[in-house]
Amino acid sequence: MHHANDILLSLFLVFVAAQVGAEVAQRLRLPGVVGEIAAGCAIGPSLLGWLRPEQILPGTPLDVLAEIGVVLLLFSVGLETRLDDLKKVGKVAFLVGVLGVLIPFAMGSVWAHGSGFAWGKSMFIAAAFVATSAGITARVLQELGALQRVESKVILGAAVIDDILAMLLLGVVVSLQGGGGFDLANLLVVLGSAVGFIALVGLGGARVMRWNSTWLEKPHSAHSPLAIVLAICLGLAWLSTLLGLAAIIGAFLAGMIASETRQQHTLEQQTQPLLALLTPFFFVITGSKIDLAQLAGGQALLMLAVVTAIAIVSKLAGGWLGSLALGRRSAAIVGFGMVPRGEVGVVVASLGLAAGVFSDRVYAIIVAMSLLTAMVTPPILAWLLRRHPVQLETSVD
Amino acid sequence: MHHANDILLSLFLVFVAAQVGAEVAQRLRLPGVVGEIAAGCAIGPSLLGWLRPEQILPGTPLDVLAEIGVVLLLFSVGLETRLDDLKKVGKVAFLVGVLGVLIPFAMGSVWAHGSGFAWGKSMFIAAAFVATSAGITARVLQELGALQRVESKVILGAAVIDDILAMLLLGVVVSLQGGGGFDLANLLVVLGSAVGFIALVGLGGARVMRWNSTWLEKPHSAHSPLAIVLAICLGLAWLSTLLGLAAIIGAFLAGMIASETRQQHTLEQQTQPLLALLTPFFFVITGSKIDLAQLAGGQALLMLAVVTAIAIVSKLAGGWLGSLALGRRSAAIVGFGMVPRGEVGVVVASLGLAAGVFSDRVYAIIVAMSLLTAMVTPPILAWLLRRHPVQLETSVD
Repeated sequence: MHHANDILLSLFLVFVAAQVGAEVAQRLRLPGVVGEIAAGCAIGPSLLGWLRPEQILPGTPLDVLAEIGVVLLLFSVGLETRLDDLKKVGKVAFLVGVLGVLIPFAMGSVWAHGSGFAWGKSMFIAAAFVATSAGITARVLQELGALQRVESKVILGAAVIDDILAMLLLGVVVSLQGGGGFDLANLLVVLGSAVGFIALVGLGGARVMRWNSTWLEKPHSAHSPLAIVLAICLGLAWLSTLLGLAAIIGAFLAGMIASETRQQHTLEQQTQPLLALLTPFFFVITGSKIDLAQLAGGQALLMLAVVTAIAIVSKLAGGWLGSLALGRRSAAIVGFGMVPRGEVGVVVASLGLAAGVFSDRVYAIIVAMSLLTAMVTPPILAWLLRRHPVQLETSVD
Repeated sequence: MHHANDILLSLFLVFVAAQVGAEVAQRLRLPGVVGEIAAGCAIGPSLLGWLRPEQILPGTPLDVLAEIGVVLLLFSVGLETRLDDLKKVGKVAFLVGVLGVLIPFAMGSVWAHGSGFAWGKSMFIAAAFVATSAGITARVLQELGALQRVESKVILGAAVIDDILAMLLLGVVVSLQGGGGFDLANLLVVLGSAVGFIALVGLGGARVMRWNSTWLEKPHSAHSPLAIVLAICLGLAWLSTLLGLAAIIGAFLAGMIASETRQQHTLEQQTQPLLALLTPFFFVITGSKIDLAQLAGGQALLMLAVVTAIAIVSKLAGGWLGSLALGRRSAAIVGFGMVPRGEVGVVVASLGLAAGVFSDRVYAIIVAMSLLTAMVTPPILAWLLRRHPVQLETSVD
């Protein structure tokens, strides 16, 4: 009688898998997010097959729920981030963002060329090494209550810079690969609009909210401050994608400007149940996309190990060098915080597959690398953060 | 670069439309839900076309979000409903449920037959007159803080009975129409499993929760009581659909058993942000499904008026007669509370269209009737409830 049967079952399975995975991980003293990703891999097409491959394609309901989940996660991280704190770490974050793009791109290109790919293809492959996925790191920082640490501010600021640069780089390699040549003017327009959007929304929005936020309570609706802020979050997430940035950048900005309101504390509390319901979808679906079959065999595993090692070492080097001003220990935290790749690497790999640049195996290896970096980082990051409990702290009231 | 662009825009549009619609409605002293449905009709394919027809089909992300929204809404209504209160009104609710199915079915069949349809087809059409959609009424009762009134308990109890009977009736008319004849044994199994499920979950679940709910706090997760209860909600919603019941029945039961825990108050608060984010999708998508083009022309409008009048009068009569024991004023509230049809009428109409029983026009009229009853009821119900503020009240602790 109801079409909803099949989808309700998958919602239930994903949600329960996330809870079980997180619980097991936490009992093993690992971050919950590792358990959620592993649970996704377990119930996904590769192992148990409780989620079918067509259920986790882009644009399916589960994928959209995952997207909403990570958007809300970065929104809540933004809510705990003050613009002034970010400004304080601006220079370091910029350096981390730039070096964290250049070093992985250079190392990735050289390695791919050394493995026999032409320079054009090599740069395309290297583009998949570049973009940090802030979602994983943000979740670990949040789980450990570490969002107010200076390293966290650097990581979040750098993730914004990183995303802009990664987008530009991807534009360049795609146009080079397409044979259409290199359009500098277009690239400058893209760069300008992204930077302009972030500056306008971040600085302007924060100023408006700090000046007056009583208008958030004007509507009759019982949910009014939250509902308006969620509308801003969805709107900015959409605008980000329109400019070629990740949706989570807009969501993070929305949270950041909402953190300037006097309703910030209430909003933070109200966001928690939304995270409880929706972020599990992001991590479980991320895990379910790992295609283990493509990685069977010694050669594939060796290549995966090398690619993952390069991805980790190069990003770590970028983050570490960029933030050495904070001291070595903090630099290590920043470096590892930048390591997770997640969905952007997957997007680059999909583009490469569609354009015929990559084989199925290279595709699977790049996807697996993205997800491995996401799985390896949280325990290390958690360990580092616990070991150096108070490096430097910027207080927010 | 990101596939999420298009879907993020539609999420933003639906969410903002809901806020604007609810705000306008409330300034006109109408329930917010009326504004949300009207906003959906406005941005839907019929008028502005901001939502394309293929975006609101069953199983699309927006439709799934709508389903999750109504599931959470009935969950939250369940959270405010104690089993003991329902038991007190058991007999009246049963009578309302039974009469509220029989009278619309009889009047619908007679009217359709009188309009020239064969008896088989007439009964199929009449099946679309039957099932009350508790979502609309529940939202109005919740908006007005009237969930603790005795009329509300009767409506919610009757909605459960109603759904079981509607499901059985639909089974009968479909099998009659299919020419397969009438399988009483199968029907009894369906009835038995539905009643068994509800009794087991409702009575058993409530008893377990009342006996001990500290286990809800055992997990390490920061979200633990809420996450476990949400998992139960999704699980029972799925089980309901498996037995042929509406998903919202399972969600309501999940809320009702959670209301017996000592975390009930916290859960109620935590559910509010979930409602703020997700229920707008249900009401906006419901509104967007109204196909105004099919209703153009005097004849279609006349037929729609007649069908809607029969649908309203017959359901009102059933509810009123069934609950006369509560007094005339309460009986009127119960009667109007049972009027909205919503998605079940739409499902029946879709089945009829797919089976070739209905023409496109009959289909559009039945869908429009379902939605008209949903739009007409809230203002009347709100007016009746405000006019008779305290008829009889059952207190919960």
